Amino acid sequence: MFFFKYPKEPAAMGSWTRPTCKCCISSAVQPLVTLELTENINMETKQWLMARIQEEKIVAGTELMVHPGEDDDGNMLLVSASQHVLLRAAEVLGFYKLYKDGSMISFSYRDRRNFQNSDNINEFLTLAECQFIILHTLENIKAVDEKYIPGYPTITLYPREAIFNRLRKNKILHTFYPLHNEELLTELGNRWHSHRNLSLQPIDSIYRYFGGSVAMYFSFLEYFTCSLIPMAIFGIILVSLSMDTIDKCILFSCLNMIWSTVVMELWKRQSFVLSYTWGTMQMNSQFEEPRADYKGLMGTNPITHRYQPYYPAWKRKVKIWLVSVPILCLFLGFSLYGMFVFFRAEAWVKAYHSENDGCWACALYLPSVLHTLYVTSMNILYKMVAKVLTEWENHRLETSFQNQLTIKVLVFRFVNCFAALFYISFYLQDLELLRKELASLLVLTQIINQLIETLVPYLHKAFIGKGAGLKKATMENAPDIDKIKSQGQMPPFPGMFDEYMELFVQFGYISLFSCIYPLTAILIVVNNIVEIRMDGLKLCHLFRKPFNSPAANIGVWQTAFELIGFLSVITNCFLISISPQVEEYCTENNIAPKNVLIWTVGVEHALLAIKVILAFVIPDIPQWVKLRIDRVEYQSLQALKHKLAEADKGHSRETEEKETWPDGITRSDSNESSLHMNNRQLNLL
Amino acid sequence: MFFFKYPKEPAAMGSWTRPTCKCCISSAVQPLVTLELTENINMETKQWLMARIQEEKIVAGTELMVHPGEDDDGNMLLVSASQHVLLRAAEVLGFYKLYKDGSMISFSYRDRRNFQNSDNINEFLTLAECQFIILHTLENIKAVDEKYIPGYPTITLYPREAIFNRLRKNKILHTFYPLHNEELLTELGNRWHSHRNLSLQPIDSIYRYFGGSVAMYFSFLEYFTCSLIPMAIFGIILVSLSMDTIDKCILFSCLNMIWSTVVMELWKRQSFVLSYTWGTMQMNSQFEEPRADYKGLMGTNPITHRYQPYYPAWKRKVKIWLVSVPILCLFLGFSLYGMFVFFRAEAWVKAYHSENDGCWACALYLPSVLHTLYVTSMNILYKMVAKVLTEWENHRLETSFQNQLTIKVLVFRFVNCFAALFYISFYLQDLELLRKELASLLVLTQIINQLIETLVPYLHKAFIGKGAGLKKATMENAPDIDKIKSQGQMPPFPGMFDEYMELFVQFGYISLFSCIYPLTAILIVVNNIVEIRMDGLKLCHLFRKPFNSPAANIGVWQTAFELIGFLSVITNCFLISISPQVEEYCTENNIAPKNVLIWTVGVEHALLAIKVILAFVIPDIPQWVKLRIDRVEYQSLQALKHKLAEADKGHSRETEEKETWPDGITRSDSNESSLHMNNRQLNLL
Repeated sequence: MFFFKYPKEPAAMGSWTRPTCKCCISSAVQPLVTLELTENINMETKQWLMARIQEEKIVAGTELMVHPGEDDDGNMLLVSASQHVLLRAAEVLGFYKLYKDGSMISFSYRDRRNFQNSDNINEFLTLAECQFIILHTLENIKAVDEKYIPGYPTITLYPREAIFNRLRKNKILHTFYPLHNEELLTELGNRWHSHRNLSLQPIDSIYRYFGGSVAMYFSFLEYFTCSLIPMAIFGIILVSLSMDTIDKCILFSCLNMIWSTVVMELWKRQSFVLSYTWGTMQMNSQFEEPRADYKGLMGTNPITHRYQPYYPAWKRKVKIWLVSVPILCLFLGFSLYGMFVFFRAEAWVKAYHSENDGCWACALYLPSVLHTLYVTSMNILYKMVAKVLTEWENHRLETSFQNQLTIKVLVFRFVNCFAALFYISFYLQDLELLRKELASLLVLTQIINQLIETLVPYLHKAFIGKGAGLKKATMENAPDIDKIKSQGQMPPFPGMFDEYMELFVQFGYISLFSCIYPLTAILIVVNNIVEIRMDGLKLCHLFRKPFNSPAANIGVWQTAFELIGFLSVITNCFLISISPQVEEYCTENNIAPKNVLIWTVGVEHALLAIKVILAFVIPDIPQWVKLRIDRVEYQSLQALKHKLAEADKGHSRETEEKETWPDGITRSDSNESSLHMNNRQLNLL
Repeated sequence: MFFFKYPKEPAAMGSWTRPTCKCCISSAVQPLVTLELTENINMETKQWLMARIQEEKIVAGTELMVHPGEDDDGNMLLVSASQHVLLRAAEVLGFYKLYKDGSMISFSYRDRRNFQNSDNINEFLTLAECQFIILHTLENIKAVDEKYIPGYPTITLYPREAIFNRLRKNKILHTFYPLHNEELLTELGNRWHSHRNLSLQPIDSIYRYFGGSVAMYFSFLEYFTCSLIPMAIFGIILVSLSMDTIDKCILFSCLNMIWSTVVMELWKRQSFVLSYTWGTMQMNSQFEEPRADYKGLMGTNPITHRYQPYYPAWKRKVKIWLVSVPILCLFLGFSLYGMFVFFRAEAWVKAYHSENDGCWACALYLPSVLHTLYVTSMNILYKMVAKVLTEWENHRLETSFQNQLTIKVLVFRFVNCFAALFYISFYLQDLELLRKELASLLVLTQIINQLIETLVPYLHKAFIGKGAGLKKATMENAPDIDKIKSQGQMPPFPGMFDEYMELFVQFGYISLFSCIYPLTAILIVVNNIVEIRMDGLKLCHLFRKPFNSPAANIGVWQTAFELIGFLSVITNCFLISISPQVEEYCTENNIAPKNVLIWTVGVEHALLAIKVILAFVIPDIPQWVKLRIDRVEYQSLQALKHKLAEADKGHSRETEEKETWPDGITRSDSNESSLHMNNRQLNLL
C-alpha cells in the first residue's frame, strides 16, 4: 500500500492551518486514479501539478492526495482522496443519497449523520463514485496566476482555464484512468460472468463497481433478453405447430407490435426506478468543463460574461446542416448504390450460372461476400468520417459530442443494415427471399460479432502482455506499481456504442420482420445469454476500467428503439397485406386488391394511434417513486417558506434605510427559491 | 375612496409591535377584491373573518387590509393590501420580475431596489397580479385553534384546513370577485375594442389588466388571424384564377400542411417569449390549495404526512377509465347514430321530394334543421354530463379539474363537429357535397356563434341592470358601494373554453378540408377581426372581472391544435387521391387505382415524417430567451457554489463533535441546492 502524505505547509501561507481530520492519515488509503504524464516529463511541471492537486481549496487547489508513483520512468502520479474531501465533493456535485427516512435526497455534508451508511465511506460512496469525484475535481482545477504551464513557457493559459484539459491537449498528460480494486473485482466476477447458473446479474454490484452507464447497459441487456422469452416461446409453438395460415401471421404481428410498445414503455419505468435508487435520476446535470478538443476564439461568453474561448451555436448549426447532413446523405447514397449493384450482380450471376450449368458453384456466393465486405467497410469508413465531422463541429461538452456522434452513426448503420431487407420486402415483395436473408443475417452477424468482440481484445491482451513481459525484464519496479502499469497498457474501453447498436439491430430484426421468421426471438435470446457473460468478462479483464458517468437512462437509444417500434407497425402491416395467404384469401372471397390496401392503411393508422395512446397512458414514473420525490419536494418547499418567513420577521425590525444588501448572495437566494419550483405542479393526491 | 384602518392591537399580543410602514396609511388605497358573504351573516362570523384577514402573520393572519363595506345588507367585505404585503407575497409566490441588468429573475424582497420600477408599486405589480396575490393569500388562511367556524358551531374544521374553501363550501361566503379599475378600464377600452383602425391589440395592457390566461388567448387569436392572411390571399388568387387542375389542388394542400405545422411551432416560440416577458414561464407551479369541492376521507396524506382529507389517485383513475370514458363513448355513439339517421332521412326526403314533385319544398330542410338541433342539444347535454362526471372524479386541484373537463368536452365536440364531414369525405367520397356542407357550416356556425356570444350577455345585462335599478330605488348606499355591487351582479366570466373551441373548429375547417374550399381562410379572417372586438367588449363590460391565473402557454389546446395538424395530412392526402382531377389524370395516363393508393400512402407517411422532423428541428425556445435563462441559472449556480464553499470554510474550523445540526433547514438547503439543477444541462455555447 502507498503512503499518501500531506503536502508540506506552503511557506507563504503560514497563517492557514489544515483541518485535522484523523481519517486522512492512514496506511490503508488506496490509490483511485492514475495519471500517466508524458515520458521525460519536466520535473518542474510534475512538482507544480502535484502542488496544484494537493493545495488547499482556499488557494484554488483540490485537497486531493497525490503520490509520485515511484516507478522507473517517473511519469506516474497516483491520486486518492480523504474521506472528508470525498464527502464535500459529493455535496457540491449534488449526489443523491438515502436519507434516514428512506427517501433519496441530495447529500448535505452538514447533515451527513442523518444519511444511511454515512459512517462507512466505502459503503456510502461507491468505488465508481469516488473515481468520478476525483475525475471531476481534477478537471476543475483552474489556472489562477499562471500565465503558462511551468516548464513549458510556450503553452500559455488564459485566466481560469481548466489546466487538465490543457495538459491533455498538449499531450503533457498522456493518459489517466481509474484503477481496479482486485478484491472487489474478484467478488464481482464470481457473482457475474463466472457464475455457472442462469441467474440474474448483480446489477447493484455492477453499479457500485463500474458506475451508472455500464450498469444501465447491462440492466437493459438483461431486461431485453428476459422480455424476449415469451416471444421466443410463442415463436417456437407457432413453428412447431406449423400453422401457416393468415390468422397466425396477423396474430403474431399484432402481438409483436403490442410487445414492442409495452416493452419500451416498461423499460422507461424500469430505468426510472434504477436511476432513482442509484440517485442519478435527479442529479444528472452539472456545469461540465468544455471538452479538451473544444476550440473557440477568445471572447466574452454571453452566459458567464467571462473572457473564454467561445464558439457561437449558430456556426455549429450551419456546419451540421450544410456539411455533416449532406455528407451523411452522400454516404447513404453510396450504401444504397452498393445494394443495387449487389442485387443486379446476384441476378446476373444466377442467370449466368443456370445458363452455363455447373461452372464454379462457389461464384454464386461471390456477390454476397463482396456486398458484406462493402457494407462492413462502409460502416467502418463512415464511423471514422463521422468522428472527424463531429470533432470539426466543435461541440463544447463531451455529452453533446457523444450524442451527435451517436445519432450520425446510428442513422447510417440503420440504413446500411436494413436497406436490403426493406428493398426485398417493399420493392421486390419477395417474402421467401426475405425469410432466407433474415435467417442468414441473424446467424452470421451474431457469430461474427461475438468473434470480433472477444477475439480482438484477447489477441490484444496476449500481444501486449508479451510486450509488457519484455519490459518487465529490463525494469525493476515494485510489484504494486507493475500491476498499475499493466492496467494502463490495456486498451481503453471503447464505450457502449457497439453494444447498444447490436441490441438495436436485434430489436429491428425482431419487430420489423418478425412475422416472416418467428424463430428470430429464440436465436437472439441464446445469443444474448452468451453476450452477457462475454461483455462482463471483457469489461472486467480485457479493458482499462472506464470512468463512471452518472446515467439516468439510455439516452438517445430510448428514442431510437421507440422509432423502430413505430416503423414496425408500417412494415408488419405491409408484409401481411402482401403475404400469399392474404392474396389467397382475397381471391377466394373475391376482394379487390385496392380494398385490401385501404384496409391495411386503416388498420395501420389505428395501430399507430393505439401505440401513441398506450405510450401516453402508461405513466413514465412509477407511482411509488413519484410519491417519494413529491414528498421531498414538498418538504423542501415547506422549509423554504419557513426560511422566507424567518427572513421576513428578522427583516421587518430593521429600518428601511439599512436595506441596501450586497448583490451576489441575495440574488442567489431568490433564484434558488424559485428555480426549483419549475416545471412541476405538485398534486398532493 | 375607502379608508382602510389598521386592526387595533390585539390585547393578548401586547409584546408585538407592528412594523411602521408609511405606505400603508394612505387615503388612496383602492379596494381590490370584494367578498360577498351570505345575507343575514352572523356578526360574530363576520368579525372573526375580518380579524383573521387583518391579523399579523405571526398569529397566522395575512396582514391584508379589510373594510366592512358599509352597505345596507352588511354582507360585503372589501379587501386590499399594503405595498409591503404585496411585495412580500410576490416573493413567496415566486414572481419573476425584470432585474436591473435586463434579465427576468424571481423577485426578492430584500433585493427589491435592484428590480426595475420597484419604487412604483402600480408599475411594478400589475392590477391582475395584485388581485391574484390577494386571492392566493385569502385561500391560504388556515384554521389554527378554531374547532368550528365561530357563529356556526355545526361547521367543524380540521387542523390547518383552508378556511376560505370551507366558507365557500358551506355557502357562508356567497361569492368573491376582483374589482374593475374604471380609469384603467377606459384607457384599455380606448386602445382595444373601441379602437377604430385595424391595429394590433395592446396585449401588454391586457396582460396588466386581466392577467396571463386572458392575454394569452387574445394574443393567440391575433396571431392565428394574422397567420391566416397569406392563406386567405392565396385562396382568393386560386379561386379568382379558377385553375381547377390537379397541380393547384396538390400545391394548396402541401402549402396548407406546411402552414399548419409552422404556425403551431412558431406559436410555441411566441408563447415562450410572451410568458418570459410576463415572468409566468418559470413561476408557474405552486402548492395550490385543494378545490372547494374536493372531498376525501380524513387520513394521513403520504406526501405531507398531515391529517387531511385525502383521496387516493388510483380510485380517481378507476373512475375515469371505468365510468367517464365509457360514458364518453356512449355519447359519441349517440352522436354518430344521430348522424346516420340524418343522412338516411335526407336521402329519403330527397327521394320523396323528387317523386312527389313540388310538395313542401321547405321539408327538404327539415332533416338538416333537426340534425343541427340534435347536435347542439347533444353538445349542451354532454357538457353538463362531463361537468358532473369530472366533479365526481374528485380532482384535488382546480387545474387538473379544468384539464380533465376540457379534454372530455374537446373530444366530444371534435367528433360531433367533424363526424359528418369525415363521413362525407371518407365514406361517401362525395367532394361536391363536402364543399357545400363546409361552406354552409362555416357561414352558419360563425353567424350563430357571434349572435349567441354577444346577444345573451347583452340581454342578461339589460335584464339584470333593470333589476339592479329597482333595488337601488329601495336602498340608499353610497355611490361607490353601488358601483361595486353592480359589478357583483354581472354574470361571472365563463372561462376561455368556448373561445378556444371556436378557434379549434376554425383550425379544423382550414387544415382538414382546405383543399376543397379555398375561401375558408378569408371567411375566418373576417370573422376573427369582428371576434376580437366582440370578445374584448364582452370581457370589459358584460362580465365580472375574472381572477388572473398565470399562464405560460395555451395548455391542452396546443396539443389539440397539433393533433389536428397530423390529422390534416391524412385527410388532405386522401381527398386529393379521390379527387376527380386525379382520377382523370389516372385514366388519361393509364395508372391503376391501386398504384395511386400506394403513392398516396407513401406521400402521406413522408409528410408525417417531415412534420415530426420540422417540429423537432424548430427550437421551442427562442435563442435570446434561452441565453438569458441560462445566464440567470449560471449566476445562481455560481452563487450556490460560493455559498457551499463559505459553509465549508466556516465549518472546517469547527470540531467534529459540535456538528449535530438541526434537521429542517439543513435539508432544505441541500434540496434547494440540487433540485434546481434538475432536468437541464447548461451548454455555455
